[in-house]
This record gives sequence, structure tokens and C-alpha cells, in this order.
Amino acid sequence: MKLSQFGQQLTSDSGIVNLMADLGNALNVNPNLLFLGGGNPAKVDEFELLVSQLLSEIAQDPQALHKLVGVYQSPQGAEDFIQQLSHYFQQHCAWQVADKNIAITNGSQSAFFILINMLAGQAADATQHKHFLFPLMPEYLGYSDQGVADDYFVGAKPQIEEIGPDLFKYKIDFDNLHIDDKVAAICVSRPTNPTGNMITDDELNQLSDLAKQHNIPLIIDCAYGEPFPGIVYQSSNYQWQDHHILVLSLSKLGLPATRTGIVVAHPDLIQRVVKVNTIMSLANGNLGPELMTRMLAQGKVKSICKDMLLPFYQRKRDVLMNALRNELQGLPYRIHQPEGAFFLWLWLKDLPISSADLYQRLKQQGVLVMDGSPFFFALDDAWQHKQECLRLSYCQSDEVIESAAKIIGQEVKALYSKQA
Amino acid sequence: MKLSQFGQQLTSDSGIVNLMADLGNALNVNPNLLFLGGGNPAKVDEFELLVSQLLSEIAQDPQALHKLVGVYQSPQGAEDFIQQLSHYFQQHCAWQVADKNIAITNGSQSAFFILINMLAGQAADATQHKHFLFPLMPEYLGYSDQGVADDYFVGAKPQIEEIGPDLFKYKIDFDNLHIDDKVAAICVSRPTNPTGNMITDDELNQLSDLAKQHNIPLIIDCAYGEPFPGIVYQSSNYQWQDHHILVLSLSKLGLPATRTGIVVAHPDLIQRVVKVNTIMSLANGNLGPELMTRMLAQGKVKSICKDMLLPFYQRKRDVLMNALRNELQGLPYRIHQPEGAFFLWLWLKDLPISSADLYQRLKQQGVLVMDGSPFFFALDDAWQHKQECLRLSYCQSDEVIESAAKIIGQEVKALYSKQA
Repeated sequence: MKLSQFGQQLTSDSGIVNLMADLGNALNVNPNLLFLGGGNPAKVDEFELLVSQLLSEIAQDPQALHKLVGVYQSPQGAEDFIQQLSHYFQQHCAWQVADKNIAITNGSQSAFFILINMLAGQAADATQHKHFLFPLMPEYLGYSDQGVADDYFVGAKPQIEEIGPDLFKYKIDFDNLHIDDKVAAICVSRPTNPTGNMITDDELNQLSDLAKQHNIPLIIDCAYGEPFPGIVYQSSNYQWQDHHILVLSLSKLGLPATRTGIVVAHPDLIQRVVKVNTIMSLANGNLGPELMTRMLAQGKVKSICKDMLLPFYQRKRDVLMNALRNELQGLPYRIHQPEGAFFLWLWLKDLPISSADLYQRLKQQGVLVMDGSPFFFALDDAWQHKQECLRLSYCQSDEVIESAAKIIGQEVKALYSKQA
Repeated sequence: MKLSQFGQQLTSDSGIVNLMADLGNALNVNPNLLFLGGGNPAKVDEFELLVSQLLSEIAQDPQALHKLVGVYQSPQGAEDFIQQLSHYFQQHCAWQVADKNIAITNGSQSAFFILINMLAGQAADATQHKHFLFPLMPEYLGYSDQGVADDYFVGAKPQIEEIGPDLFKYKIDFDNLHIDDKVAAICVSRPTNPTGNMITDDELNQLSDLAKQHNIPLIIDCAYGEPFPGIVYQSSNYQWQDHHILVLSLSKLGLPATRTGIVVAHPDLIQRVVKVNTIMSLANGNLGPELMTRMLAQGKVKSICKDMLLPFYQRKRDVLMNALRNELQGLPYRIHQPEGAFFLWLWLKDLPISSADLYQRLKQQGVLVMDGSPFFFALDDAWQHKQECLRLSYCQSDEVIESAAKIIGQEVKALYSKQA
């Protein structure tokens, strides 16, 4: 088959595609694998009960049903959804945004495909090739293959602050953060996938100032964070500004299969996102918007986040945290301070094999985790740390989490003791 | 804002975006406009009743609900959906296809974005710039802006066969159809949007042979056609072959807001589509797949097409056809033989103004239609015919259709009589 450059670029072996395929194959071969991989949110029964009530309401109301399945949404997104969102942002976040600041996409992955390719790569005037700057690697793997040509990303190595006996935190190394006119945008996920790090308010303000100085946008991927689903275990104080581009999602609220992404930005950018999205997708799926519009109109979203999701994930986090501490006692491990999202980021200092090999060994032992190394995608430096980390999801049952931690402990202990 | 070349290309004034915006604005200003524009399918109550039953079932079954909203589908698409589809294609169409021949996308518009950019444009070996060839213009406007750079499409001028007193049919002019090594693929919609034409079995076989000879795919957009929704008013006899790429959709079945597209092709191509779709979208929305899986499993799809949709649209077609014939009597109009889809394509021979101007005048008079000229997008020839056509949807109530036809008749009559 003869492919275009675009086709060649997007079908060559890619980190995310291979990982998804490997996870999928492993689960097909052994459906009983203890699964701490992937980014699927947990099944939160209380939330799904609410969804089932809303869906029954819609199914029984012919007009609502017709809107749900039978009418193309306008290119920007369903109007009532956008109105509810802007109202929520004004009321609950005190952001100065209106309907014209909001665009809907078919998931936040699609939103990033649009943003990355609209801003980075060969500049419109052909004078430059521009990059997305990730100021704090590791970052979300899913960005790494989204450029339609090579060389779209640069990442900055973090500083590591060791905290107490077994925690650590990545910090932005502002002294070594270089922003020149080849940087199209600064981009962070907050809380960070894969680490569960919350970039501090102070760090975020510095990034915002830098972006403003250089007249480029600061993009914040809020898939796991505020204002929803709000899986953040400490307070933060964020204010949207008009050079910020927020990308939100309904996935981690518990609706990943609805594929609903939300972009909050300056109206000039929103209009452009809408144009590209119309050409690429014509319109957005209406299940996510329709469910969320009702949850917003009924004033339920804050309580879903604070009363259903946050305590659920916080408890799960503690289950995995305690299990790992028990199983890894005495080994030179550290865990990234778990400040948000639903992952623990485990650093195995001076691990005798690579994290990629450890991933394979754990798979043989019946535990699926995420190898940490692909999350360092935009960081070319040779750095041992890149081969020493795993991402562990805590979305499963307590039994699965604890059994998996035991196996991880045994395997890692054996590796270190062989070395000693 | 500094955009990339990609950003510049996909946000410049585009036919489909402007048209959608103009339609949207017109409807906002006057919601009572008689709306024969757009591609939204009709509200078919019997079909939506079935959907409401299925949705209620899902809402009341916690496992089904969890799958509907809470689990990312695998990159190729939900497995049970793909199995039901391949079974249906084998049983009802006698196609030699298996699960590996099928990929799901977020709507057929997204499928085309992937196919067009994966195959056309700058070749991977950088030796050539390739095109999609549309052998029978006019064609679906939605393709026209999907190339991520300039110059992705070439179209061939049709032959016009005049039939009886007031019908005509476009035919492929094979004598003037040039296929060289710059053609990446041959592409047709069947039935054709905007004309309602069914490219004949004989024409399709010739295209298939040509594609095979030149070792390129033949892409058939079946959004309105067989095997579903099957809005085709005459029999045809199509067999899938492994150099064909079919693009199907659930939209015109009555589920446009679920955004579900289906690609049927050689496994090598399917694997590539899945890779690009994963990078661009991560996963597909699950509402369309979940509803359709149930309709397929319950053996309802054939009857939905033949007993619900086809008679509905055929009757509507006759309502608009009769109304136009009454209102345009004595004028030099012809209607494309209405063989499928839910549009009439009206040709106003020697119209004294352009169809774009007529569109504006009709909007002033309270009727929204689609100007025909943008559907000739890949045809550079100066040709008066390009400015003489309108696309009229017959998805509205009989009253709307008849009132609109009356206004169209008055306006057109006045134009011709001024000229005389």
C-alpha cells in the first residue's frame, strides 16, 4: 500500500498504539491478569446509578431521545451544554468566560490532535518549525504520536525533591527552562498523568507569566483535575486567563466511552478549533453532552466530584500506597507524592533491569502495569531515572490491588537481591 | 495567533464551515424557516421508538450501562459490534469479510479525514503529490476541505443524459477519465450526495476494474446506501472486493448524533486506519455501537431499512417531486432521477442568476436550501451548469415541503420571466 507522509507518520510503530495492543493482547490471553495498567476510570456504582436514571429519563421522553441520537449538534457543540458549562465556570470557579470561550470535541485526545497540529510544526509562513514545550517531563504518553510530522515536542528534565523516607516530587527547573521563538505553546497536565503530581500554584503562575511574556498559550490538560472530575487531594487556586487553553474531559468523571472533550480558551482560538473539528468530525457525539447538561442543570456536578469520586479514589490510593509500603519495605523505592489523578508513580532507584523489562516480567507473573519509560518521550537526555519508573492505576478492587502489590514486591525484591 | 501550515489550511474559509455557519445563523434569526438544507435525516417515529426501548434496556442493566459509558472500547472498535457486523455482511450481503476487515471510527467524516490524508498528499517517498479522483462530480462537499494541505482532489465532469420531459442522470465519462500514477484512490458516494444518483452496477464494475489495474483502492461512501440504511429506490448488485474500501455510517439510519462510522477494507488498510484513529481519537463513542449491536443481534436491521425507512423516504420523495413539478410547470427545469438518499437535485437550465444568489433570495423568502455550486469543488472547468443547481432535502413534514416548493416556484418563475 502506498501511503502519504501523513499516513507513514501516523501508522509507524507508535508508543501508545503498541502499548494499547500489548495490553489488549495480554488481557485476551489471560483475562484474569491483575490490571493496574491503562487509564480507564473505576466503576463507581453510585455515579453509574445516577447515569442510569438520567438515561431512563431521556429514553422515555421522545423529544429528548430525538435530540440525543437524531440531530447533528452545531459545530461548536450543543448550545444548552455550552450554556450550562459557562454558567458553571462563572459560578463555581469565578472564571471570566462566556459561551464563546467554549468548544466541544469528540474527547480530549481529539482536542489535543487539533491543538498540537494547529500550533506546532511547520509555521504558516514557512519560516520556522515550532514545538510544544512540556516544562515538566514525564508527561502523558498520548501526546507523543500526535504530530503529523517529526519533531513536534521538547521536554524539560525535572528536579527531584526527595520527601521523607519514601516519597518524592518532581519540580519544574525554571533555571534551565529555555523558551525561544520556536516554542508554539507550553503544555502541562495537572494533575499530571502519569505521576499524580500537582504542579504547584506558584509553578503554574510562573509558567503563565512566561507564556504571556512570549505571547504563546499555556495549555493545561485538566482531564483528572479541576473543575471536574476534581480528583485532587489538596486545594489549589487556579484562575483562567485569556492566554490559557484548558482542555477538560468527561472521561475520568466516569464517562470515557462518551468521548467528550471541552476546550476553554480565547474566542479567536475557539473559532479555529471549531473549524478544524467540523472539517475532521462534522459534529460531536451527543451522549456525554446530554448527560452532563442534565447533571449541571440539576446542580449535581460539585457533589459528584466531592462526595462520590474524591473519597472513592482517595481510599483506593491509600490501599495501594499501604500495600506497596508493606511489600517494598527495605528496598530503595520512592513513590511520587500522590496529589491527584488515580495513579501511583513508583520509582525503583538503581533498578538492575529496565522498567520495560520489569513490565514484561510482571506480565508473566500475572500483573499488568504501565512501563514508565514512554512517558519521558520528549526528553532525549540519557538519564537512568527514565528506566526506573512504573505507573500503577488504583482503579481496581482492593483484592486486585493488594494481590498485585504482593507480586510486584516479590519480583522487585528478587531483582535487587540478585544484584546485591 | 501564530498558526502552523496545518492550522492555516484547516481554519481558512472553508465551504462546509461557512455553509454550516450560514445555515445555523439563518435558523437562529428565523427558527421558522422552511428547512430543506442540511443532511440531517428525518425523525422516523417508529425507529426512535425502537431506540428508546433499547436505551431503556441498557439503562436498567448495570453491566450494559457500565459498558455503554464507562469502558474505553478497544482501538479497532467494540468486539461484539464488529462480530455482529461481519456476520451481517456475510449473511445478508454474501461478502467475504471477517472481523479483521472492519474498523470503527467516530463517524464517517472522521473516517474520510483519515483515508484522504493517509493516501493522498505528499507521498511517503516524497517523489509525488497524489490526489483523490472523484470520477463523477458533483460530490459530497464535506470531503472538500479535509486535505491537510492544498491540492488533494481532482474531479471529472459528468455526461448528462436527459430523460423524459423533466428528468436527467449524470453518467461517468469513461472516455475522458484519466488515471495516472498521481491518483491515490478513486472515490464515489453511492447513492451520491448531493444528487441522489445511483452509479450503475456497470459503471461501478468499470471503476473497480480501473482501480485494480492501477493498484489503487476504490472507495465507496455508502452513508445513504446498502447495506444500511439502504435508502435506494432500485435494486443493485454489489459485491465487496479486497481492493474496495467501504465507508458506512449509522447517521442516516437515524443516529447522526452517535457519530459512528464503519470502514470495511483489506486487513492491512484496517490496521492502519485503527492506528491513526487511536492516535487522533484514542477510542470511539459507544452509543452507536451499543444500539446497533442490539439491533443486529435481534435481527432487526433488514426490516428497519426495508419496512421503516425506505417507504418513509420514498413517500417523502414523491411529495417533493410532485410539488416541484406542479410549481415549476413550464419552466426549463430538470430533476436528477431520484434513485437514492433523501435529496432532490434540481437543475434550473440557463438560470438568470447564480445558484448562490438564488440560495440567498430563497433565504430571504423563508426557505433554506443548499446551493449546488460547492458540490462541484474538484472541478475547475468553467461550466455554466455548476451555477444552476440546488440540493433539496425531503426530510421535513409534507406541509413544509409543499410550502417550500411553492416559494421556490414563485421565486424561480419570477427570475425566468424577468429574463424573457
